[in-house]
Amino acid sequence: MTSTEPIRVVVWGENRHEQVNPVVRGIYPDGMHNTIADGIADLLGGEVTVSTRVLDEPEHGMTEETLAATDVLLWWGHTAHEEVSDEVVDRIQRHVLEGMGIIVLHSGHHSKIFRRLMGTTCSLRWRNDGDSELVWTIAPRHPITEGVPQPIVIPGQEMYGEFFDIPEPDELVFISSFSGGEVFRSGVTYRRGYGRVFYFSPGDEVYPVYHHPDVQRVIANGVQWARPERARESYLVTPMYLTGEFDRPVLTSPDGLVDYYTREPITPREP
Amino acid sequence: MTSTEPIRVVVWGENRHEQVNPVVRGIYPDGMHNTIADGIADLLGGEVTVSTRVLDEPEHGMTEETLAATDVLLWWGHTAHEEVSDEVVDRIQRHVLEGMGIIVLHSGHHSKIFRRLMGTTCSLRWRNDGDSELVWTIAPRHPITEGVPQPIVIPGQEMYGEFFDIPEPDELVFISSFSGGEVFRSGVTYRRGYGRVFYFSPGDEVYPVYHHPDVQRVIANGVQWARPERARESYLVTPMYLTGEFDRPVLTSPDGLVDYYTREPITPREP
Amino acid sequence: MTSTEPIRVVVWGENRHEQVNPVVRGIYPDGMHNTIADGIADLLGGEVTVSTRVLDEPEHGMTEETLAATDVLLWWGHTAHEEVSDEVVDRIQRHVLEGMGIIVLHSGHHSKIFRRLMGTTCSLRWRNDGDSELVWTIAPRHPITEGVPQPIVIPGQEMYGEFFDIPEPDELVFISSFSGGEVFRSGVTYRRGYGRVFYFSPGDEVYPVYHHPDVQRVIANGVQWARPERARESYLVTPMYLTGEFDRPVLTSPDGLVDYYTREPITPREP
Amino acid sequence: MTSTEPIRVVVWGENRHEQVNPVVRGIYPDGMHNTIADGIADLLGGEVTVSTRVLDEPEHGMTEETLAATDVLLWWGHTAHEEVSDEVVDRIQRHVLEGMGIIVLHSGHHSKIFRRLMGTTCSLRWRNDGDSELVWTIAPRHPITEGVPQPIVIPGQEMYGEFFDIPEPDELVFISSFSGGEVFRSGVTYRRGYGRVFYFSPGDEVYPVYHHPDVQRVIANGVQWARPERARESYLVTPMYLTGEFDRPVLTSPDGLVDYYTREPITPREP
Repeated sequence: MTSTEPIRVVVWGENRHEQVNPVVRGIYPDGMHNTIADGIADLLGGEVTVSTRVLDEPEHGMTEETLAATDVLLWWGHTAHEEVSDEVVDRIQRHVLEGMGIIVLHSGHHSKIFRRLMGTTCSLRWRNDGDSELVWTIAPRHPITEGVPQPIVIPGQEMYGEFFDIPEPDELVFISSFSGGEVFRSGVTYRRGYGRVFYFSPGDEVYPVYHHPDVQRVIANGVQWARPERARESYLVTPMYLTGEFDRPVLTSPDGLVDYYTREPITPREP
Repeated sequence: MTSTEPIRVVVWGENRHEQVNPVVRGIYPDGMHNTIADGIADLLGGEVTVSTRVLDEPEHGMTEETLAATDVLLWWGHTAHEEVSDEVVDRIQRHVLEGMGIIVLHSGHHSKIFRRLMGTTCSLRWRNDGDSELVWTIAPRHPITEGVPQPIVIPGQEMYGEFFDIPEPDELVFISSFSGGEVFRSGVTYRRGYGRVFYFSPGDEVYPVYHHPDVQRVIANGVQWARPERARESYLVTPMYLTGEFDRPVLTSPDGLVDYYTREPITPREP
Repeated sequence: MTSTEPIRVVVWGENRHEQVNPVVRGIYPDGMHNTIADGIADLLGGEVTVSTRVLDEPEHGMTEETLAATDVLLWWGHTAHEEVSDEVVDRIQRHVLEGMGIIVLHSGHHSKIFRRLMGTTCSLRWRNDGDSELVWTIAPRHPITEGVPQPIVIPGQEMYGEFFDIPEPDELVFISSFSGGEVFRSGVTYRRGYGRVFYFSPGDEVYPVYHHPDVQRVIANGVQWARPERARESYLVTPMYLTGEFDRPVLTSPDGLVDYYTREPITPREP
Repeated sequence: MTSTEPIRVVVWGENRHEQVNPVVRGIYPDGMHNTIADGIADLLGGEVTVSTRVLDEPEHGMTEETLAATDVLLWWGHTAHEEVSDEVVDRIQRHVLEGMGIIVLHSGHHSKIFRRLMGTTCSLRWRNDGDSELVWTIAPRHPITEGVPQPIVIPGQEMYGEFFDIPEPDELVFISSFSGGEVFRSGVTYRRGYGRVFYFSPGDEVYPVYHHPDVQRVIANGVQWARPERARESYLVTPMYLTGEFDRPVLTSPDGLVDYYTREPITPREP
C-alpha cells in the first residue's frame, strides 16, 4: 500500500530571527530550517529528499511548481506571519486539501496557514523563561510516537499553555508539562480534505530544540505519517450526479449537462 | 446554570431566489428567512426573540451592533455567497469564536463563513431531482434530536451526498439517505473557540422544507443547543503569564510588562 | 427542554479506608461518600436530592429499585473493586446504557463498572507522595468547567500519570500536571448508550480533596451535566422492521412476526 | 517503520449455519471462514499468512499460543455468541489491548468480544429481505478505502440500520444505505489499548457477500491497517514511579519497593 518513492519534503523557514539575533544565529548558524531539514535527512536517509524555502524568496518559495512537487511541507514562522501573502496561503491550503501533508512547528500556531486550516485564533498562553518541558505520549501506538522516550525531556523551552484555541483534534498524541506547572496539547493531528496536518509545539528559536534527538525523531515520524498515500487529486467541486449514475460526475452548463472532466455534453444513460 | 433571558436569535437570509423564482416565492411568499424565523418563534415562544436580516441590507445586516446582540445566528445562502464581504465574514467569525452560536443551513455549506470555520472546501455531490430524504438520528439522546421521529421523512428534497469535505465532526447527529441511494452527514456539530456550530442540510429553496414540522423542531432544538451558556468574552490573545502567576495575564510592551486588561505597568509578585 | 424535577443523585462509597485508616477517618469522619454528597447538596440545593450507598450494604446498595430511581450515580472505590459482584456491575451498566448518568471518581478508574464501560484496562502510572496537582481546563465553555479557576490548585494529591489506558474520550475537559512533572487527562467524558459518563481523577483518600471548593464545584457541575434529559428507556434490542415501516419494531417468533412491545401477532401494512 | 514480516492473520468462523442451512452451504461450501481467508490470501499474497479457527475446536481455537502468534484476528459469529466462553473472551480482549488487531464482521456486532471492547449493547435495527446495500466512503484517504469504488454496490444483503448502539467511533469510514431507506455506520474504527479495532458490517450468511471483490478489498485493507506496528507488549499495570524517575516503574511489596520487571528490591536514585 505504501509507495517506495522517496518522500519529497520541503522545510519552510521564516529565517528572520537568525539574521538579527546572535543567540539564534549561534544555535542555528545555517538557519533553523536547515537544522530541521538535516535532522529529517539524517534519520530517514534515502526514504526522503529534503529541501528548504524561506520567506524572502519570490512567492516565499511557495510556488505552484514547488508545492505540486511536495509531499510534506514543514512550516516554522514567528515574527513575520503577516508578511506571508494571502495568495500563497490560499495556494498552500489548496495543496493540503488535495493531499499534501503539512507539519506546523511551534510558533507556526499563529501562522496564516494554520489558522486558515483550523478556523480558530490558535491563541495560547506563553512565557519565555527557560522552563523545562516534558513531552508525554498519550497515544502510545501512534506512528508519530515510535522510538521516543516517555517523556521527552527538553531542558529549556518557551512555555506554551492552555487554553490553546484549536478545534478538537482528531488525535491527541502528546501533552507537555512545563516546570512552571502549565500543560499544553503539544502534538495534535487533523485531516483537512485529503491532507494530513500535524502540529508539534516544541521549538522556540532561542533554545537548541531542533538539535534534540527525540524532537528530531518526532519530526521524522511526522513526515512519514503525513505523506500522502495516494496521488494528489483535485477535488470534485460540487459535481452533480444523475440518479443511479454514481460514477459519472456532471456539471450543468448553458448548453445542458456536460461531463465533469471533459466538459463534453452527456446524455443520461438508459436505466 | 442556564440563563432565563430570552435567546436572541437572528435569521440571515440571502433572499434572492425569492425575488426571481416564482416557485420559491410561491412556497415562501415572505422569504425563506421569515418562514425559518416564524418556525422558531412558534416553537420556542417566550424563550426567544427572533429577527431577520438579509444580504442586501447595509453590511448585509451583520453590523457589529447586531452581532453583539445575537446569541444564535442562522445562515441560509446559496447563489450569492461571493457577495458577502470578507470584512463581514471576519466579524461573524470573531463573534462565533467569542461565543455566539451559529446554525448553517443547507446550501450555506458553501458560504464563506462556514468554509472559514471549517478550513475545508465543504464540497459535496448533489442532484436536484425531487428525491425523498430520510433523516436518521445517530445520536439518540442529543438535545438536537429531541422530539423528532426516526426517521424524519421529507418527501421532496435536493440530494446532497458524500463525500462531504468537512473536518471530522465533534458530534454526528443525523445521517440522511435519499431515494436515489446516496447518504449524507446531514447534521453535524463543532465547537470553534467559545462558540457552537451546527450544520443541518435539509432545505432547498424549491421545496417547502422549512414548513416541515420536524425540520422546524430540529432547528428550534438547534437554537437551544447553540445558545451561549456564558457571557460573550473577548479572547486573551496570546497573553504572557509569569511563573506561578496563573491568574494575571500580562503583555510585553516597550515600557516593560503591562497588565493585559489595564495596560498599566506591573511588577512580579513576591514568590 | 430541561426538567424541573430534582436530580436524584446517589453517591456510592466503598467506605473501607475510613474504617481502618485513622488518617482517612480524620479527614472524612463521616466517610468520603458523605462529604462528596454534602458538597453536591450544598452547591445545588433544591435542584437535587442526594443519598449515599456503600459496599457493605446488601447488593452493595445498588438494587434494581435504587438504580431505577437514580438520575446520576457517583462511584468512589479503591481497595475492594473485586468485591463488587458481577451481577451488580451488569445492572449498573444496563442502567447507564438506558440513560442514567455516572460520575467515576479517582481510583474508581479501576472499578469493574468503569472498565466495563470503557473496554480497556484503565491502567495508569501513579505515586502517592504529596505532589501538588494543577487541573487545567481544556474545554473552556464546557458546562463542567463553569465557575472553576484556571487552573484548580490542589496542594497535595496522589499523582496519576499517562499513559492512561482509556478509549479516546468524546470530550477532553481537564488535563492535570503534577509537581513531579507528570500529566494526566483528569477530566474526560463519554456517551455509552443513552447515558453520560464523566471521569474526574482528583480525590485520593489521604488528602482532603473532596473538601476543596473547586473540586466540589466540578462534581456539582458534573451532576448537572450527566443527568438524563429524557425518561429512562429500555433499549430496542435488535428489533426487526419491515420495509417502509420505520416506526413499528417487530420480533420474529415461532408464531411469526409479533409486535415488539405487545408481543401480539402483526401483519404487514398495505404499501 | 513498517515491518516486512508477513502479517499473521487468523479468521475465526462460527461455522454453524454452514452445517444446517443448505443455502449457506451452497454459497460457502468450505465455510464462510475459508472464503474470507481465501480473499485475504488472494489479495495480499506473500504479505500475509492466513489460517482459520472455528467455534467447535477446543478453546474455540483461540488458545494462548494461537493468539500470541496472531497479528490480526477476524471474527464472524451469529447464532452461537453465547457459546463462546468468557475465559476465551477475556483472553482475546487481553491480546487486543496488548496490540493484536481485530476485525469484527457483520453479525459479530453482537459477539461477546465486540460488546466487551465497546462497553455497549451494540444493538441495531435489521431486516433480512434482500435489500441492496450501497457502501459509501466517508473518509476518502483512509487506508481501508483504497481501491474501492464510490459506492460499493452489494445487490443483496441483510439490512442493518441505525440507531447502532456503539461508542462514538474514532474514525467513521463507511456509511451504508439500503434500498428500504435505512442508513448504517457500516465501517468504524477504534483503538483499544495498543490494538486497533475495525468493524465492517456487510456479510450476512445467505448472500455471497464475501465473494464480492470490493468487500474482499476492504477486508484486505483492514488487515493491513489493523496489523500492529510494534511488538506485542504486556501492559504496565498501574506501576508506581518515584519522583523524577520517569523511566523506572516499580511496585510496592511487603518488602518495600521492587523493580516492576525483575521484582528485585530497588533504592531511590540520588536526585
